Amino acid sequence: MSESNPNQIEAAVLRANAEFYRAFSSGDYAAMSELWAKQAPVVCFHPGLPALIGRQAVLQSWERVLAEGPPFRMRCDHARAHVLADTAIVTGYEGTDDRPAHLAVTNLFMLEAGQWRMVHHHAGPLARAIGMPEPSRTVN
Amino acid sequence: MSESNPNQIEAAVLRANAEFYRAFSSGDYAAMSELWAKQAPVVCFHPGLPALIGRQAVLQSWERVLAEGPPFRMRCDHARAHVLADTAIVTGYEGTDDRPAHLAVTNLFMLEAGQWRMVHHHAGPLARAIGMPEPSRTVN
Repeated sequence: MSESNPNQIEAAVLRANAEFYRAFSSGDYAAMSELWAKQAPVVCFHPGLPALIGRQAVLQSWERVLAEGPPFRMRCDHARAHVLADTAIVTGYEGTDDRPAHLAVTNLFMLEAGQWRMVHHHAGPLARAIGMPEPSRTVN
Repeated sequence: MSESNPNQIEAAVLRANAEFYRAFSSGDYAAMSELWAKQAPVVCFHPGLPALIGRQAVLQSWERVLAEGPPFRMRCDHARAHVLADTAIVTGYEGTDDRPAHLAVTNLFMLEAGQWRMVHHHAGPLARAIGMPEPSRTVN
C-alpha cells in the first residue's frame, strides 16, 4: 500500500471494484477468489436472493456462476468510492453488455494484507433501469 | 465505548441496528438523524431506487418518509452482525408488521465519537419472501 492521499485511496478502491467486474465478466474464478477477503467475515447477496455468509458459501456460489461462463459482460456504471477508514464502499449500478443498468449495487472493500479485498456484495433489482453514463469526450 | 470483547461489540452493533428500525417504525426523525453518521460519508438505497449520497440527501429522504408517519412497523429479521474493525455490517430481511420479509438489507455502521452510527443502508427486493424466524421458546 503506497497510496496515502484520498485520491490515491479512492483510485485503489475503484481498481479493486473494476477487478471484480473483470473477473466476473471473464469467468476468472481464481481472480475472484483472490479478490474476496480471506480473514474478514464476508457476505454476498446475489440479486433477489438470501444472504450467503462466510467465505466458503460465497466462493462456492461464484465458482458455480463463473463455471457456467457468464454469457454477458457485467458493468458497474457510475461507480463511486466512499472511503471510511480501512473499509470503503463502492456504490453503482450494474448492467449487462450494452443494456441499461438494472441492479443497484453496494460493494464493500477492506484493507487486508495491504490489498483492498471485497468483504460484501449486495446487488438488488432497480424499479427502473438507469441509462449508461455519457461517454467522456476528448477536449480538442 | 466500554465494549471490548467480540460479543459485546456485536451486541452494540445490533442495538444500533434495532434503533434504526425503532426510529423508522415510530416516525422518530430526531433519532434517525442522530443515528446516521455526521462525519463519515453516507449512502442510502431505498428499495428499487438510485443511491442517495451524502448526509443532506439521505436525511431529507428520511424526513419525508417519517413525516408521513409510516403506517406500518418495519422489522429486521435474522439480523446478523459482521464486525470488520471500526465498521460493522448488519445483514437481514425487512418485513412490515406480521408479513413475511420482502426485502434483503445491508446496514453498515461505523464507530464515530464512540457510537455505532449508520453510514450505509441498502434495502432491495427479494425474489421470494422469507418467513419470520420461529419465536424463541422459554425452556422450563
